[in-house]
Amino acid sequence: MLSKSIEKLANEFNKLPGIGKKSALRLAFHILEMDNEDVIKFTKIMLDVKENVKRCSICGNISEEENCVICENEERDNETICVVEDVRDVIAMEKSGMYKGHYHVLHGKISPLNGVEASDLNIDSLIERINKSNIKEVILALNPDLEGEMTSLYLSKILKENDVQVTKIASGIPMGGNIEYADMATIISAIENRKKF
Amino acid sequence: MLSKSIEKLANEFNKLPGIGKKSALRLAFHILEMDNEDVIKFTKIMLDVKENVKRCSICGNISEEENCVICENEERDNETICVVEDVRDVIAMEKSGMYKGHYHVLHGKISPLNGVEASDLNIDSLIERINKSNIKEVILALNPDLEGEMTSLYLSKILKENDVQVTKIASGIPMGGNIEYADMATIISAIENRKKF
Repeated sequence: MLSKSIEKLANEFNKLPGIGKKSALRLAFHILEMDNEDVIKFTKIMLDVKENVKRCSICGNISEEENCVICENEERDNETICVVEDVRDVIAMEKSGMYKGHYHVLHGKISPLNGVEASDLNIDSLIERINKSNIKEVILALNPDLEGEMTSLYLSKILKENDVQVTKIASGIPMGGNIEYADMATIISAIENRKKF
Repeated sequence: MLSKSIEKLANEFNKLPGIGKKSALRLAFHILEMDNEDVIKFTKIMLDVKENVKRCSICGNISEEENCVICENEERDNETICVVEDVRDVIAMEKSGMYKGHYHVLHGKISPLNGVEASDLNIDSLIERINKSNIKEVILALNPDLEGEMTSLYLSKILKENDVQVTKIASGIPMGGNIEYADMATIISAIENRKKF
């Protein structure tokens, strides 16, 4: 290779999700061509994230304070908790503007193949929250894949002991999507979950 | 947004080539989930690139020394120079193992729309090299798009005054490629440049 430094940087980029060897090299060269101050700024912002961003002590969402902006917002419906896998799911749900309750972020899903058990997830604090507060409904919003479904099933079982209604978001053909191109499992779910007009 | 630090980092990633808003956010979250030491190492390597990597004083290739490993290699054919747009082209040519001569990196191509003129490119030092040394052939290996062709034409004209043979790499249907899916310009070039069996 022409430069060990470039090669090392390309290797680092290559470790990031969704970045292949060629893109990694392209990014390394882009860094080389950037202004010095911009690269310094970039690295500083990267370290700031590690320094400043924590998990909300209530819901597990990201936060720069002890509790996140959603948990601290008193105008939100405090009788509903939406359970998601990941912080990015919170962001997606918030963008929709449809949901006004609180969240609980599991930070993963049950996945025996990857050695992730229920005890590895942020579940205990969910039960504690439900026991302590006035929660009436828990909406399970996990990704509708095998592991997500398994996790939903697990949660629905352990939440049965509590006095809350457990619901699950609908899965089916996405809006603007195409039945022709939908996979079998999606079509089955869409038919099973059909509703009266 | 949930965290200003994450938002800032996603913005930085979004500035990199080929990284859209969603990927940028995904990368920012990946950094958040990485081990502290790994992030520090990543930023250090990024700064090292800016610190250590320079342009070779002879050919414009990247180098961590005054001259690059290719210019310093006395076993290479020093009668041939291959002119490329970019350092990544040098890497691709070297991977092929086909070419044993030297290189000259222009760092761009003539592009009136982007305000890049011949004088912005690493051309003067190419002429100087040809005048000073024993170069017999200059191979133009620019990308065969409009701007690359324009640059090749320009170089072939100014190199006419020198006592060197100027050649251009072939363009045509890529090996393993499909004539059916080739664009018009490629097919035209492939027919024009046909050779006897």
